[in-house]
Amino acid sequence: MKFLIINGVNLNLTGLREPGVYGTRSLSDIEAEIGRRCAEAGDSAAFFQSNSEGEICGRLHRAFLERECDGIILNAGAYSHYSYAIRDAIASIDIPVAEVHMSNIAARKEEFRHKSVLSEVCRGVVFGFGAAGYLAAIAGLKELAREEKE
Amino acid sequence: MKFLIINGVNLNLTGLREPGVYGTRSLSDIEAEIGRRCAEAGDSAAFFQSNSEGEICGRLHRAFLERECDGIILNAGAYSHYSYAIRDAIASIDIPVAEVHMSNIAARKEEFRHKSVLSEVCRGVVFGFGAAGYLAAIAGLKELAREEKE
Amino acid sequence: MKFLIINGVNLNLTGLREPGVYGTRSLSDIEAEIGRRCAEAGDSAAFFQSNSEGEICGRLHRAFLERECDGIILNAGAYSHYSYAIRDAIASIDIPVAEVHMSNIAARKEEFRHKSVLSEVCRGVVFGFGAAGYLAAIAGLKELAREEKE
Amino acid sequence: MKFLIINGVNLNLTGLREPGVYGTRSLSDIEAEIGRRCAEAGDSAAFFQSNSEGEICGRLHRAFLERECDGIILNAGAYSHYSYAIRDAIASIDIPVAEVHMSNIAARKEEFRHKSVLSEVCRGVVFGFGAAGYLAAIAGLKELAREEKE
Amino acid sequence: MKFLIINGVNLNLTGLREPGVYGTRSLSDIEAEIGRRCAEAGDSAAFFQSNSEGEICGRLHRAFLERECDGIILNAGAYSHYSYAIRDAIASIDIPVAEVHMSNIAARKEEFRHKSVLSEVCRGVVFGFGAAGYLAAIAGLKELAREEKE
Amino acid sequence: MKFLIINGVNLNLTGLREPGVYGTRSLSDIEAEIGRRCAEAGDSAAFFQSNSEGEICGRLHRAFLERECDGIILNAGAYSHYSYAIRDAIASIDIPVAEVHMSNIAARKEEFRHKSVLSEVCRGVVFGFGAAGYLAAIAGLKELAREEKE
Amino acid sequence: MKFLIINGVNLNLTGLREPGVYGTRSLSDIEAEIGRRCAEAGDSAAFFQSNSEGEICGRLHRAFLERECDGIILNAGAYSHYSYAIRDAIASIDIPVAEVHMSNIAARKEEFRHKSVLSEVCRGVVFGFGAAGYLAAIAGLKELAREEKE
Amino acid sequence: MKFLIINGVNLNLTGLREPGVYGTRSLSDIEAEIGRRCAEAGDSAAFFQSNSEGEICGRLHRAFLERECDGIILNAGAYSHYSYAIRDAIASIDIPVAEVHMSNIAARKEEFRHKSVLSEVCRGVVFGFGAAGYLAAIAGLKELAREEKE
Amino acid sequence: MKFLIINGVNLNLTGLREPGVYGTRSLSDIEAEIGRRCAEAGDSAAFFQSNSEGEICGRLHRAFLERECDGIILNAGAYSHYSYAIRDAIASIDIPVAEVHMSNIAARKEEFRHKSVLSEVCRGVVFGFGAAGYLAAIAGLKELAREEKE
Amino acid sequence: MKFLIINGVNLNLTGLREPGVYGTRSLSDIEAEIGRRCAEAGDSAAFFQSNSEGEICGRLHRAFLERECDGIILNAGAYSHYSYAIRDAIASIDIPVAEVHMSNIAARKEEFRHKSVLSEVCRGVVFGFGAAGYLAAIAGLKELAREEKE
Amino acid sequence: MKFLIINGVNLNLTGLREPGVYGTRSLSDIEAEIGRRCAEAGDSAAFFQSNSEGEICGRLHRAFLERECDGIILNAGAYSHYSYAIRDAIASIDIPVAEVHMSNIAARKEEFRHKSVLSEVCRGVVFGFGAAGYLAAIAGLKELAREEKE
Amino acid sequence: MKFLIINGVNLNLTGLREPGVYGTRSLSDIEAEIGRRCAEAGDSAAFFQSNSEGEICGRLHRAFLERECDGIILNAGAYSHYSYAIRDAIASIDIPVAEVHMSNIAARKEEFRHKSVLSEVCRGVVFGFGAAGYLAAIAGLKELAREEKE
Repeated sequence: MKFLIINGVNLNLTGLREPGVYGTRSLSDIEAEIGRRCAEAGDSAAFFQSNSEGEICGRLHRAFLERECDGIILNAGAYSHYSYAIRDAIASIDIPVAEVHMSNIAARKEEFRHKSVLSEVCRGVVFGFGAAGYLAAIAGLKELAREEKE
Repeated sequence: MKFLIINGVNLNLTGLREPGVYGTRSLSDIEAEIGRRCAEAGDSAAFFQSNSEGEICGRLHRAFLERECDGIILNAGAYSHYSYAIRDAIASIDIPVAEVHMSNIAARKEEFRHKSVLSEVCRGVVFGFGAAGYLAAIAGLKELAREEKE
Repeated sequence: MKFLIINGVNLNLTGLREPGVYGTRSLSDIEAEIGRRCAEAGDSAAFFQSNSEGEICGRLHRAFLERECDGIILNAGAYSHYSYAIRDAIASIDIPVAEVHMSNIAARKEEFRHKSVLSEVCRGVVFGFGAAGYLAAIAGLKELAREEKE
Repeated sequence: MKFLIINGVNLNLTGLREPGVYGTRSLSDIEAEIGRRCAEAGDSAAFFQSNSEGEICGRLHRAFLERECDGIILNAGAYSHYSYAIRDAIASIDIPVAEVHMSNIAARKEEFRHKSVLSEVCRGVVFGFGAAGYLAAIAGLKELAREEKE
Repeated sequence: MKFLIINGVNLNLTGLREPGVYGTRSLSDIEAEIGRRCAEAGDSAAFFQSNSEGEICGRLHRAFLERECDGIILNAGAYSHYSYAIRDAIASIDIPVAEVHMSNIAARKEEFRHKSVLSEVCRGVVFGFGAAGYLAAIAGLKELAREEKE
Repeated sequence: MKFLIINGVNLNLTGLREPGVYGTRSLSDIEAEIGRRCAEAGDSAAFFQSNSEGEICGRLHRAFLERECDGIILNAGAYSHYSYAIRDAIASIDIPVAEVHMSNIAARKEEFRHKSVLSEVCRGVVFGFGAAGYLAAIAGLKELAREEKE
Repeated sequence: MKFLIINGVNLNLTGLREPGVYGTRSLSDIEAEIGRRCAEAGDSAAFFQSNSEGEICGRLHRAFLERECDGIILNAGAYSHYSYAIRDAIASIDIPVAEVHMSNIAARKEEFRHKSVLSEVCRGVVFGFGAAGYLAAIAGLKELAREEKE
Repeated sequence: MKFLIINGVNLNLTGLREPGVYGTRSLSDIEAEIGRRCAEAGDSAAFFQSNSEGEICGRLHRAFLERECDGIILNAGAYSHYSYAIRDAIASIDIPVAEVHMSNIAARKEEFRHKSVLSEVCRGVVFGFGAAGYLAAIAGLKELAREEKE
Repeated sequence: MKFLIINGVNLNLTGLREPGVYGTRSLSDIEAEIGRRCAEAGDSAAFFQSNSEGEICGRLHRAFLERECDGIILNAGAYSHYSYAIRDAIASIDIPVAEVHMSNIAARKEEFRHKSVLSEVCRGVVFGFGAAGYLAAIAGLKELAREEKE
Repeated sequence: MKFLIINGVNLNLTGLREPGVYGTRSLSDIEAEIGRRCAEAGDSAAFFQSNSEGEICGRLHRAFLERECDGIILNAGAYSHYSYAIRDAIASIDIPVAEVHMSNIAARKEEFRHKSVLSEVCRGVVFGFGAAGYLAAIAGLKELAREEKE
Repeated sequence: MKFLIINGVNLNLTGLREPGVYGTRSLSDIEAEIGRRCAEAGDSAAFFQSNSEGEICGRLHRAFLERECDGIILNAGAYSHYSYAIRDAIASIDIPVAEVHMSNIAARKEEFRHKSVLSEVCRGVVFGFGAAGYLAAIAGLKELAREEKE
Repeated sequence: MKFLIINGVNLNLTGLREPGVYGTRSLSDIEAEIGRRCAEAGDSAAFFQSNSEGEICGRLHRAFLERECDGIILNAGAYSHYSYAIRDAIASIDIPVAEVHMSNIAARKEEFRHKSVLSEVCRGVVFGFGAAGYLAAIAGLKELAREEKE
């Protein structure tokens, strides 16, 4: 299967920013590991990061219009909590999207983090497993695809 | 690793109850597959289901007092939305708990399902991947354990 | 028709507890009258009371799995106001359930009593007619069955 | 016993309006059946329908001032959800009023339908039994009268 | 000065309805006393009562279009708590309106009575002085007129 | 096409009432212009104004029962903000209804004006274009009819 | 009758402070007029003003303990909106208290002014009649006393 | 008159995205028809679409600084529900803006769609008329301009 | 006097669970001390602990039906925050109940802990004194009994 | 140990004010008994009462600056429900404060009494035991001191 | 320019109270530095501190009535969060007031601290700069005065 | 010290936009004055303005990654009220940020402006001093730096 992993705003600072919450590995380290694990499993992974809400929407549109993948893993960062624009972009396309947050957003101290407005239109969510959450989400989408084939 | 998979109220009806939401496989089918997959990976899985809030608390206590596993997968069913008793039981023990719901609770039509009061004290959550979510949660806990060992 | 009448938490104290609200007849007196009136009408009635949320769920499951009745009359007591577990149990089964409260819950002074979380998944509700409400609910379910047959 | 059955706004369209919710029998069909069933039981029934909030209040006043009945069955339609005027009219009179809605208002999708501001001042409520609800409410008021006589 | 005293829904029952709250004098007794006291003071008083929200609006319009008085005393009954129609009628006319309630609405037990949506567009309010409130409001409007003349 | 233009409470005062908000043209001037513009376009327009919530419901019923028009333009005045009775009347009929307000209700200073409970069951809404809004709404309904024919 | 007129915080600035809202007469001018009008009617008036919440409570206590008057007129200024201390002082004494505000608090633009926490425990309220409100409140208390004597 | 028609986020997918809600015509088809209809009426239309909130603000600034049109039609897509940035951009310029949504946002099932934070600072709104809404809004702005000229 | 001390869900883990909050003494240590102190004072103490909401209700029923004590000390654990079932059980019996929490629930960081739904129907509450709170509550009930005897 | 017992606003009226709620003993009777019981136990008690929020803060400051006691018992009266000033004074000092209310504030009918803003910064609370609550709180503070010494 | 620096409740403890939040310098140290810095800049500074809400109001009145300064710096302590009395005092006077808090109130953990009810009627606010905030506010008022002179 | 002054959305229109609120000086005038005043004080100032949320985040990242300044002054315009993305960017970097708004946002009439979601993660805030606020914020950061050095 082909996966697109999209990371949103401030995630380019992963590893540098609040390591107690987000760990010390950089985003490119994480992407490299995801790529390697996908390759081992015979899947492919493409990556995209942007701080711009509009560009994330555009990237979702392109994936849809060019049918470039079978599943999308999306960690939209803080946009998750208010971007109805990204939510509508997800709802507009027919590729299954799994939402990932490295931290367990329900356990964060700020009230605004407890709810992602994207979750409702995603296929599933994986929160709190750190960088391992990307892999768990990929595994989840693969299981779902297998089940749907049966 | 040793896992305990706890299913809560009404989950004994899985496969019989609202198959559009919860699928057509029975709970014992699902448990059997989890057991088989764990065995293939060299892990072990024990299972528990109860409709009683108090018994679920008691089962979490026992796992803790007898140190019988390395991780717990908990799908508490409807208790997830109001059982501060189960929440406190989770918070009282030091075994990592991953919360699973087969449906994507953020996408359910009833307002009360959108929030689990358990999530805040769990290590991570996996929602919306159907029965595959149990496996994804086990995978997630294993990745975390691996990372923490490094 | 065959009816199952389920009474929930604290209803075993009926007649002893706040007689201004719940009357002075004991639960067994009320059950006896319901049984007699059903028999007169050629119907049968079975009875169940429990203080345990889990047992009430289990009793609803059993009625469904063993197809033991054509209609259920449920007065869940205080569980009515927060038990999403019982709500899900009702929603999981295909036997029509009528909800009864002896008092008119909208007229009780405590805010929490004004809403039953069970009502949404019941076929109909009868509140405020005292013990007569059980009979009115049985009458209502019989009328509905007659109309649906036509 | 003498009953007055009052139907409020838009109920003159019953049978023509959203039959999935309100059934296909016209209001006069329903009134005819109620009249027939009351006559069989030795009771009498009078009927009133109005789209005007003020007229419904006035009709309740008249029933009270002229002591024309022993019980009132009221389905105020959408006025149920906001007419404190009708609520006050009910509270001003000493004839017992039973509130009826053909649909189970707790199960309707619009939030505003979940609460009737009239219920608090009615003797009891019967929701969700379709046209049979009027008969169940009459039965309920008769049971109550019988009990109070004892 | 010429005054118009408008009483709204259910106030025709004054003296018959909840005498603990509204006293035992009938509306016509109260109107007679107001008329007598106004005459003594060289003022005139006209009276209007209606259970209909639309008629109350129409009566306010007519007072304005025909310039028939110098001040209006309005007790709209339960409409006070939700009739934005009457509110807009008051705001549409340039005759000062004083709102009266015989009971102290802030001290009534029902939450909905604590706020009148009419007050914001009235010149002043007098609540809780029983039938004497009508006279106090007339006195208040006269004082205001006197001050404005100075 | 045949249109029915319904104006609700206080709109009979248009031109006399708060001209800064509602302009200086009277309702009959506005109706005359609408009639003339419809005639020019080969359409017909009938008009109705009432201060009574019940009469507005009744007028909607009649339009439906007698199939007297192809579209309805409704400016219910202040009833828009709370009349679930009119809302249900609109939902009960199968003639498309366009809601009009001369002012932009979202820009009015009173919180209660920001929401019309009627909008949800109307085909579309036109707010803020003054008397021109009626014409824009007629134009909109005609476009929709044209598109639906294609 | 003997009256005590209590003015609270910032009311010592009356006449100097926001004259558009509170008029241009000073507090002593207003008190002088009240005194003169009371004397004309054979009543007596004493006056008290304080910016201190505790002193206002103490003054209410003293009036009660020394039975120094038959009625109290209280304009507590901004304390009206949050001083549960003054509220409890009013509730603790058995002299009738009438609450006065010179402005119509329901029409003030700040949300916090719309509610007085004192009103619930006062006998009646008079808002919006400017300085004339004190006189109207005195008149109201006198009418009530006359009625209660009858 | 010269019009600028701005479409916001995800509207580039119109025709491809949820056709049940947004129709099957592409955005360029819709723009072409608007252009043709404007030309027929002697008006001109320019078009802009962007997924970027900042670019939409910038486009509004430019229209204002270069005085390039007499009216703006804005459908901001999901940004309508939270972009105070676009709201401020509209409020900052003196060209009248009409807000358009193809769907009737009050009738959409998601709560967040029921309110547009832009409406308050627009001249008027047209919701629910599909692509015809753009034309109705242009017609509305033209009527307003005609009236203001008179 | 005879006391029954009931401890609810998760309190069996006291001493093992979050010692920073609940101390390091086990529940049986605490019970032993209470027993000893009661014996010294000539009182008797019985103890009950359960994780089951239904069993706690049942235990309260039994104490009442068998009149086995003069006062009950109840620490219901997390059930305190939502169990209307236990609340109704307390309200159903006529033995005074004192509610105890070892921690000061108002100072706990989770919002849900700040309110106990049981407090309203208890005679008094003692929060925040650790295990000493049980003794203080017993002392309080004894003082009350002494005062009532006088 | 040395204790300071502070009573706040309106508590000087204890015994005279609402005896159903606060009992018939005067504050000085209560203080005398507390003093006697403390003396019996080898402790000392000082007393302070004020209706002034600022003075209560000042008294707390002085106790702290002059280290005059080992524990403070505070019943702030109505200030408990809104005085963040007193709350900050408590939080500013390092002497343990126990909050007392003679009534069970959770059971009072006014919503505002259900929450004390002081509780969060107190060591513990004792509500509902009447005047005995002061003694229970002293006992509680002594137990805590004893435990902390161990 | 002449400045008056007012500090409210508990600020007399500055330096002694929660030094992590408020620093270790005493209020008189801070005042001394402000005085010195003002003198260097050719300005004068007077100081006032009180724990009494009423005295703070009175001090603001006096500054206004005696025109004793050109600007006021106010740190009202906890009164900032609920004292509508102080708010009204500020609004009643025409001397510009700048509000200061040493801590950044938006970052404090207690919800109640996030909003000052005084801010709305102040000229500007400076929060979070510690004792330096007083100087920054003085600088700000001087800049404003300079700009207004130009 | 080196400062970076960031202005957000619509602030490029300063001087042209709502001059009553934002003054008549253009952004470049303001920046020029800030630059001049910084130079006079031996500090340096760099400037950035963008309408794009993502670019503002990126600019904050760059300042952090390249360590290009000692303090940041941020006026994010309308993004302040909802951009959790910018908030997270501020929280991710270790350069102190001072938030500035030219208007006093607490005094603006729109509710949404009363709260900035950025304030919580900034070092301090300066609102309401017009363009002088930038200078006051710079002064504040310098005082803080001086204090921290001591």
